[in-house]
This record gives sequence, C-alpha cells and structure tokens, in this order.
Amino acid sequence: MSSRISNAQLAAKVMSSDDAAQFVNHGDKVGMSGFTGAAYPKALPTSIANRATQFHDRGNPFAIDLFTGASTAPDCDGVLAEANAINYRMPYQSDPVIRNRINAGETKYQDIHLSHSAMQVEQGFFGQLDIAIVEVTRITEEGHLIPSSGVGNNLEFLDSAKQVIIEVNSWQSLELEGMADIYRVPLLPNRTPIPITKVGDRIGTPYIEIDLEKVVAVVETDAPDRNSPFKPFDEVSRQIAGNFLDFLEGEVSAGRLTYDGYIMQSGVGNVPNAVMAGLLDSKFENIQAYTEVVQDGMLDLIDAGKMTVASATSFALSPEYAEKMNREAARYRKHLVTRPLQISNSPEVIRRMGLIASNGMIEADIYGNINSTHVGGSRIMNGIGGSGDFTRNAFVSSFISPSVAKGDAISAVVPFASHIDHTEHDAMVVITEYGYADLRGLSPRDRVSKMIAVAHPEYRPLLEEYVERASKNAFQHTPHDLKTAFDFHINLQEKGSMKG
Amino acid sequence: MSSRISNAQLAAKVMSSDDAAQFVNHGDKVGMSGFTGAAYPKALPTSIANRATQFHDRGNPFAIDLFTGASTAPDCDGVLAEANAINYRMPYQSDPVIRNRINAGETKYQDIHLSHSAMQVEQGFFGQLDIAIVEVTRITEEGHLIPSSGVGNNLEFLDSAKQVIIEVNSWQSLELEGMADIYRVPLLPNRTPIPITKVGDRIGTPYIEIDLEKVVAVVETDAPDRNSPFKPFDEVSRQIAGNFLDFLEGEVSAGRLTYDGYIMQSGVGNVPNAVMAGLLDSKFENIQAYTEVVQDGMLDLIDAGKMTVASATSFALSPEYAEKMNREAARYRKHLVTRPLQISNSPEVIRRMGLIASNGMIEADIYGNINSTHVGGSRIMNGIGGSGDFTRNAFVSSFISPSVAKGDAISAVVPFASHIDHTEHDAMVVITEYGYADLRGLSPRDRVSKMIAVAHPEYRPLLEEYVERASKNAFQHTPHDLKTAFDFHINLQEKGSMKG
Repeated sequence: MSSRISNAQLAAKVMSSDDAAQFVNHGDKVGMSGFTGAAYPKALPTSIANRATQFHDRGNPFAIDLFTGASTAPDCDGVLAEANAINYRMPYQSDPVIRNRINAGETKYQDIHLSHSAMQVEQGFFGQLDIAIVEVTRITEEGHLIPSSGVGNNLEFLDSAKQVIIEVNSWQSLELEGMADIYRVPLLPNRTPIPITKVGDRIGTPYIEIDLEKVVAVVETDAPDRNSPFKPFDEVSRQIAGNFLDFLEGEVSAGRLTYDGYIMQSGVGNVPNAVMAGLLDSKFENIQAYTEVVQDGMLDLIDAGKMTVASATSFALSPEYAEKMNREAARYRKHLVTRPLQISNSPEVIRRMGLIASNGMIEADIYGNINSTHVGGSRIMNGIGGSGDFTRNAFVSSFISPSVAKGDAISAVVPFASHIDHTEHDAMVVITEYGYADLRGLSPRDRVSKMIAVAHPEYRPLLEEYVERASKNAFQHTPHDLKTAFDFHINLQEKGSMKG
Repeated sequence: MSSRISNAQLAAKVMSSDDAAQFVNHGDKVGMSGFTGAAYPKALPTSIANRATQFHDRGNPFAIDLFTGASTAPDCDGVLAEANAINYRMPYQSDPVIRNRINAGETKYQDIHLSHSAMQVEQGFFGQLDIAIVEVTRITEEGHLIPSSGVGNNLEFLDSAKQVIIEVNSWQSLELEGMADIYRVPLLPNRTPIPITKVGDRIGTPYIEIDLEKVVAVVETDAPDRNSPFKPFDEVSRQIAGNFLDFLEGEVSAGRLTYDGYIMQSGVGNVPNAVMAGLLDSKFENIQAYTEVVQDGMLDLIDAGKMTVASATSFALSPEYAEKMNREAARYRKHLVTRPLQISNSPEVIRRMGLIASNGMIEADIYGNINSTHVGGSRIMNGIGGSGDFTRNAFVSSFISPSVAKGDAISAVVPFASHIDHTEHDAMVVITEYGYADLRGLSPRDRVSKMIAVAHPEYRPLLEEYVERASKNAFQHTPHDLKTAFDFHINLQEKGSMKG
C-alpha cells in the first residue's frame, strides 16, 4: 500500500488510469479538480481522451460535459479537446485547443461567475453530476482527502457526484497538509453566515470528508502542475505597476487606506506580477491577499516580510515557484490558506474584507464598461472567472491593461465595448501605462475625459471624434452614436487595426 | 411640544421649513431620506428649491449634490429639479423633471447599485456629506428616531453628515413603530457577518440612535407619501404572470423548489403586481419576500394568509394601500420588517436566503444580456436600482417584460443590447407574455432560440435574419455581426420603429 493511501478501503480501489476511465461514459457530467494549471487530475484526462478516440474510431459518439474549478492545463483540457471529447464546458477555460473548439462552435462553453459554479451544481441547474475526478496529496487512515495545490470546487463535486475517482499525486508535497481550510456552506434553505472576519481565519478542517462508498477508483500519479512561466517584466508592465501604486498612495492621502491596511485581490498574469514586484519596494506593510490564486509575486512578498497572509483557492505558480513551494510548503503554510472556491470568491466574505480588486481586461469603453472575455464581441478568450465576484464586492475595484495590444492595432479604450462583463456600475478605476482613471463619484459624461487620458495617444483623437459625434445625440446622459459605435472593432476585423 | 417630539433638546430646535432650509448652501452634499415615493422629506425640498430660485434670481449659483435611498416624488426630486437646484444626483431617480434634466445634460446622475450607495458614502468616495434631511414618524424621549415608511440610507446619512435636519411627519402612522429593524454594519476594517438567517429575523433596534448635537433643525409636517397608483392589470400582464407561475411550477417539478419554500424578490410595477395577484390563486403557501419595497400585492398576499413575512427597506404602495397601511400598521407590522438598504440589498444576506429574483427590463439581447436603464443606449430612464444586488445573488434571477412597447415599435428582445446592466453571466430566466426562456446551463448560442421564442412574433423573423448574418462570423462562441448589431435601435431613432 502506498504511503499516501492510508485507508484500506480506498487502497483496495487502486487501479490504472485506463481502467478507471472505464467508469466514464459518453454523456456523463464530470466534475474535475483543477484551477489554473494546479491540482487538476494528471492521468484520467488522457485516459478518457483515449477512450473517446476509441469510440470515435468505431463510429460511436463519446463526449462529456466537463465541470472544473477554473482553467486546467494541456494534459487536461488540452487532451480532451484534442480528442473532441468535450460537449459542454464550464465555468472557465484558457487552453488554446479547447478555446479553438469553442470559437469554431464545436464545444459549448458557459462562462460562469466562479462563485456561482459549485452553487449551481448543488442547486441542480445541470442535473446530477455522474462522476467527480479529484487530485489529492494523500488519503488519511479515515479516508479523508488532503487537497493538493488547490481546492476549487472539489468539495461540492465530491458531495454531488454519484461516483468518485481519486488521483493521489506523489509530486505534490506532503507538507501541503494543513494549508487547506475546508468548510461546507450549508445547502439552501439552511445557509448560515460564513464566519470569516479576517483574511487568515480558519473555520473548517484541513481535509475533505467524503462518502467512501462512492469511490470507484483510486489512481496513483507523479506529475507536476503545469502553469506557464511569467515573462520578464517589460517597461509597460512597470509603468502600469507604478500607476497602480500611485493610485494606492492616493487612497492613503485621501484617508481611505493605511500603509498597513492593504488587502489585495489580484487577477493572474504578468502585469499583476509586476504590481506585486512594485509593492516590494513600497511603503505598504503587512499586506494581505484575499484572492483566487497564489502567484509568484505573493511568495516574494511573503519572503520579503511584506505580506503576512494570503487566502486563495489554488496556486498559479510558475514551474520554478511551484518547485519552491513543494520544497518549502511547511514554511509557506504559515502564511497561506486555501479554501473552497465558493468561499474564496464569496460575495459575503469579499465585501466584509474590504479589499482592493485588480483584474485584467480586454477593453473598456469611454463610460467604464469592461470587456474581460471577447475579442470583437464574438471570439471568446478565457472567461470572466472570478473577476465579477471580486469587482462587484470590493472596497475599490480596478482594471489594469496595457493601452494597446498587437503593436498598436488594438486599443484597450473603445467607444463601445464589444462585450460587457462588468458594467459601468461596477468598474471604479481603470489603469494603463498612461495613468489611472478614477471613475468613482462621476456621471457617465464626466468619466469620458478620464478614460481618454489613459488611452494610447494614437487613439485619443479617434476617441475624441467619437465623443464629438455622440455629443449630437438628443439624449446626453450616456451619449452614443450607435451607427459608428463599433467602428473600432469593424476596422480591426476588416483592416487589421482599430485605427482603420 | 408636539406629542411626536418627546425629546426636549430636539423640541427646542423646531422651526419652519424655510428657516431650516437656510442651513443648506450652494455646493452642499445633501443626504435625504426617501425611497420610491415613501419616507422622503415633505417640506425641505420645496424650501430648498425656493431658496435656490432666490439665489438664481440674484444671479448667484445654487445647486446641491443630492443623495437619497432611491427615487422620491414630485415634491422632492421634482421641485428641486424644476428649480435647477441639483448638480449631482445619486443613486436612483424616476421623476420626469429630473430625468429630463439628466438627459439634457444639465444634471449629473450616477446610477449606482443601491447596496453600494451608503457604503460608498461611508467610505468617503464623495467626501463628507454636509447635511442629512430625514423624515421620521416620531422622536422618542431619548432622542431616538422612529423611521416612517422607509429606512433606505437614513442610518448611514445620519452617521456621516456634519449636520442633521429632521422632519416629523404626523401623516405617518405611529403604529409603524416596531416595524423597522435598525442594524449598523460595522465600518471597514471591522465588518462582521450580518446575523440574519431567516427573512423575518430582527437583529437591531426599532429606532435610529443619532448624535443629537448634530441636529440643527426639526420641522413638523403632515403630508402623505406619494406613490403612483397601479394601472388595472391588462391581458399582457396577466399572461406574463401566468408564465412566471409556470416557471415556478417547473422549479417545483424539477425538485428545486417546494410549494412552501418560495422566497420572492420583486421589482416595482404593474407586471410584478400582476405576478403577485397570480400567486393569490396558486398552490404556493407561506410565501416570504426578501425584497426592496413592500407593494400592494404583498399586502394582498398577507391578507389572504399566503405570505407570512416580507423584509424590505421601504414601501411602494398606491395611495389607497398607503392609507390602508396607515390604518392597519399594527396588524401589518407582525408580517413586515423594514431594514437599512445596505441590509435589504446585502449580497451576503440575499445569497443566504436563496430567493427568486424578478425584475423588469427595457430589453434583453439574444444572448441574455439585460438593459435595465437606457433607451437607445443614451437616454436614461430610471436606473439599475437594486436589480443588480438581487440578480447577481439570487438562487434564480429572472427578468420580466412585455415583448413589445409603444405599440410594437420597440422590441424587448434585440440583437445587441444598447446598454448592459446585467450581463450574460447573471440573467437566468427571461419572461414575456410568450413564455419563459430558461437560459441556465446553456452556452450563448444555445440561448438564442430560447430568447427568440419569447420575442414578439413580428420581431422573430428580424431576429432570425440577424442570427443568420451573425452565423457568418469566423468566431462562433457569441456570434455577432457588429455592422448591423444596432440596426433595431437605429431604425427606432430614424424611423420610429425597430422594424424600420
């Protein structure tokens, strides 16, 4: 018996991944662990993909509905999409293969607020899950599961599914034990307050208790999480980070923030990591994070003594930092809490914490509506993820982006957003390398000059021209010229640049 | 001393409304009570408007920034807007005079999620409030304020403002005392869980405790609340109500709802009242409401023994029902709780309750994005109000609307919403007189046929034509044809009908 499987009943269920995949059938609703390249099952997806290919080769259909915590990795979403084994996907993806399938209209994708995802499963909006496939670090003698590098929707999938397959991944550090804080939000109509009042509060158990009778297979793996490395910071990222810090300093000057009261939430990516690097040299101390994922920059802040505690649902660490975490989990564990996604992204807890949210975007319009998901209104990139959970409930919500992309073919500030994920009621501050647009307390028309000021200089005259045309509208609350509102996007589509 | 002013210190501050208005100056930020034609100050707005007119007549500027709970009435928003005495307005309005000022670009209006409004005041996003003007039913011997027909943002405005004026309205029933449940959400960083677990829970006091030193004037009034009467139900409203009940029955059949487990939230208007009338004859029993305002239909449900308890922040009763409430407040009080807006609309409590949200809309697009606020993208009607607070956090969120307006010149289902207040991630069910579109669990393209099925038959071919054009897009996640996406709206503007 593997030292990582201490429960006899479950040890008796150990089998190969290919054998375990026989429990997964065409049409099944499958809930998998996994959140941004961490904690996803490493073996079953390939085995299920192979099984699908065998079915397809014999002329039989085989596709599953795949539910996860968020994005996974090439050896999960990627292999399954490659085998055309996914019919429906929720709540988030970022893998290029599945993204192409979705944009080709071959895979159905529902882009759901992450805080809604497990709740909607539990509430029966999708019918019952057939099977949950969950990676863990180890199984205790009692049969409790010790989460690996993320919790995501595992608890609710394990509770909801008819059958369970567990992957025990010996690559994951045994020292992760104690980092997770597992708390079940009671089902309706018996919900109660989530008793977290401080970022680092622990309110549950370090393990997930399951119904052992549902476990049909246990599979042993030894494979790394697979997140992408971050690119070195470029000048634009540094400038954005500087502007973000200016904004924070402004909040301190205004008496709305103190140097030891900053609670961050941060989306994933190079710019957020640059922001965290900027914080290393800032006056901010005792920084806390109530966020979705632990990123490289947070470990640096912890190492520097600048961050006391981070609460998240998963890791999004570069390979180098994932190795460091595996080596030093016992130390980091004192500063990190991983929670079910339903709690890391809980509107209740987020609003109580009073955090400053900072998320990326594709584009913002001149009135502060934010597009986080679609290029040109039709083409999905990743998804809204948890950005809505945090943006709506933050103390201050900010969006950060370089002012242009693809050279300067794409402007991040447009007359009318081609898809809206966060409305003008939600976005408070928009930050580019040209500064920050503080939209708080402003009527729509008063936001326009602030937004144009953070646009790329090449695009400012074009935006001004639009504003001039819109000023002829008979109605001046949110003046638009609908005939030319999408000209930027149509230019991009037809001429390869929003400039036309 | 009036029997309604039992505190000697405050009784000494009684003066005329015109005298009290001298405390209000040009440029002041003024927080007033008031929520949908109830509980707004009845005298000061006219006195302030007169004062503004005197200033204007002498060539001097006079305008205030006006903060309320939500909309008020002609003798509040109306008289102040008529006198051009409002520079900036938040968080909601529905008065025709101020609406015209806003759409003419003369008054700045910020349309804010109601649950954010008091919070943002407390957080200092607007600087400090100069004065709070709040209507009450009576003042106790200790100087505690007994709320009148609504609570709204009164607590936070009274806490935040430098000075306070109180209007004591003897039209309001003394029997309202005991209905309000006043609970202060602690300020950041000391927020704690809001300990409500059942709709009717009382967690605070029946009065508002204030700093008596801040009170500069007390004004006595005797004037009714002014909400509009509801129109008699027409056939379309009845059909929508029937479809809403069909949807509820479907939830029961699916095992997601029980006949005695329905907790409603309902926007204000004729259609919601028709829905409530429909519930009178339904199988649903022990209905509860966790909502923003108490409406006529809820009193009917209480009278019929179908509704046990309603929690709200204010009344939106027709004149007839407001009189009935005044006569029978002692009886209704057993079934009603009025709370601060920050609690009636709290994401935390809403998500905990598991309610079914139902709000009106102006238009929905074929993918389920909802426009609640703007006609043709530019012209504001009322505002988002609390619809976002409830929609985002409901167990199920629904939007209801007749399929057409202005004869059939305007379709409620359009290719692309001209303003988006609730995104495709938030709207679950869209209901018209043609049925209900259940969008849950569906990818964007799978929502289209459901949405077209609830559109008016005259518009279905036009919507199908758009879908056909959009199907040529290279990207098929959310296919659009941006060149013609706003044709419906441009047709309306140029030819008087979306049909062109």
